[in-house]
Amino acid sequence: MRLAELSKRSGVPTTTIKYYLREGLLPPGRRVTATQAEYGEEHLRRLRFVRALIQIGKVPVTTAREVLTAVEDESLDQHMRLGAATFALPHGPEPDEDDPATETARREVDSLMTALGWHYGSEEHGPSPAYRMLVTAVAALTRLGYPSSARHLTPYARLAAQQAVHDLDMVETYDTPLEQAAAAVALTVLYEPVLLSLRRLAEVGESQRRFGAG
Amino acid sequence: MRLAELSKRSGVPTTTIKYYLREGLLPPGRRVTATQAEYGEEHLRRLRFVRALIQIGKVPVTTAREVLTAVEDESLDQHMRLGAATFALPHGPEPDEDDPATETARREVDSLMTALGWHYGSEEHGPSPAYRMLVTAVAALTRLGYPSSARHLTPYARLAAQQAVHDLDMVETYDTPLEQAAAAVALTVLYEPVLLSLRRLAEVGESQRRFGAG
Repeated sequence: MRLAELSKRSGVPTTTIKYYLREGLLPPGRRVTATQAEYGEEHLRRLRFVRALIQIGKVPVTTAREVLTAVEDESLDQHMRLGAATFALPHGPEPDEDDPATETARREVDSLMTALGWHYGSEEHGPSPAYRMLVTAVAALTRLGYPSSARHLTPYARLAAQQAVHDLDMVETYDTPLEQAAAAVALTVLYEPVLLSLRRLAEVGESQRRFGAG
Repeated sequence: MRLAELSKRSGVPTTTIKYYLREGLLPPGRRVTATQAEYGEEHLRRLRFVRALIQIGKVPVTTAREVLTAVEDESLDQHMRLGAATFALPHGPEPDEDDPATETARREVDSLMTALGWHYGSEEHGPSPAYRMLVTAVAALTRLGYPSSARHLTPYARLAAQQAVHDLDMVETYDTPLEQAAAAVALTVLYEPVLLSLRRLAEVGESQRRFGAG
């Protein structure tokens, strides 16, 4: 297909595609005339992945290039490839190690993870971004005196495990490792506001049941 | 108690307390000398509520004043009071009515809500902020061609209903209507990054189980 069709089918503007080509995020097309090149389905899949990372996931271009290398590395299993893609996602502020609430939070989070048999990260790469994000968020609760113990977090963690089953079911409906990695990034990010608004709606319903005049 | 103690017990700096006093978010203390006033437990509770709204919930001062009036209105039931507090929370961009994806998203969301017996909002105030936030988020999925039908959303909505039970259980551990409203605001907001990072951690575990080399 030509550039215009690649743009139409991917939803990415031609100027952005040209930028990705210059940055090496897309391999060049097959030249057909001095000014035109032909692109294939592989370009489309790669473009969708790059769009998911950069436009949806807000991952910097340099990071996107590294992630692409990992996701296309056939010596890695699909778990490692998905991890390379989702670990690149921004995850907010790092835990503040000067704050005593961080120590308390880490103890509670570690106790939660041990009880559930969850992994913090890998020996090679250290604690995962999601683990650090969780410690930061739990420290904020702790600092302000709101419930933040492993006991309070456990029911939410069990519900998160069920969310993850549905998340991965959706990811598995995609065919290639690259498409699955694109879906993992896009669905992780795009479902976040969906899940938060569903919770707020559910809270209204639950409040009505408990406190409503009827 | 004096201003310094009110500050210490609430975690709000004295300059901020003085600002809230000037803005009418806190009633004046009982004057004891020309330069000193005495504050009671009611000031502390109100201050914690104002802090939850403004510092944690990022609600503007003018809105906080209106919310305070509703939360302290004893003619309202506790469901209405909690609603007044949580409806004031910022909820991101409004649905883009010029985008056909918004219409599709609204149809799917409405079908979900009807199937679950959830309420969109009230006749008096129209669709709730959480409902509008959900339509915006589902429209983004739709526009990018990711799964966004009522069928896809249903399992997440059911898990959100279970989150809400735990949320309201925590809210009910607080004693007065004002403290419960403060907790509803603070827990709604502060648990959001906790829930998102638990989901990301759970996704890593689920991916390991499905795709890991073992």
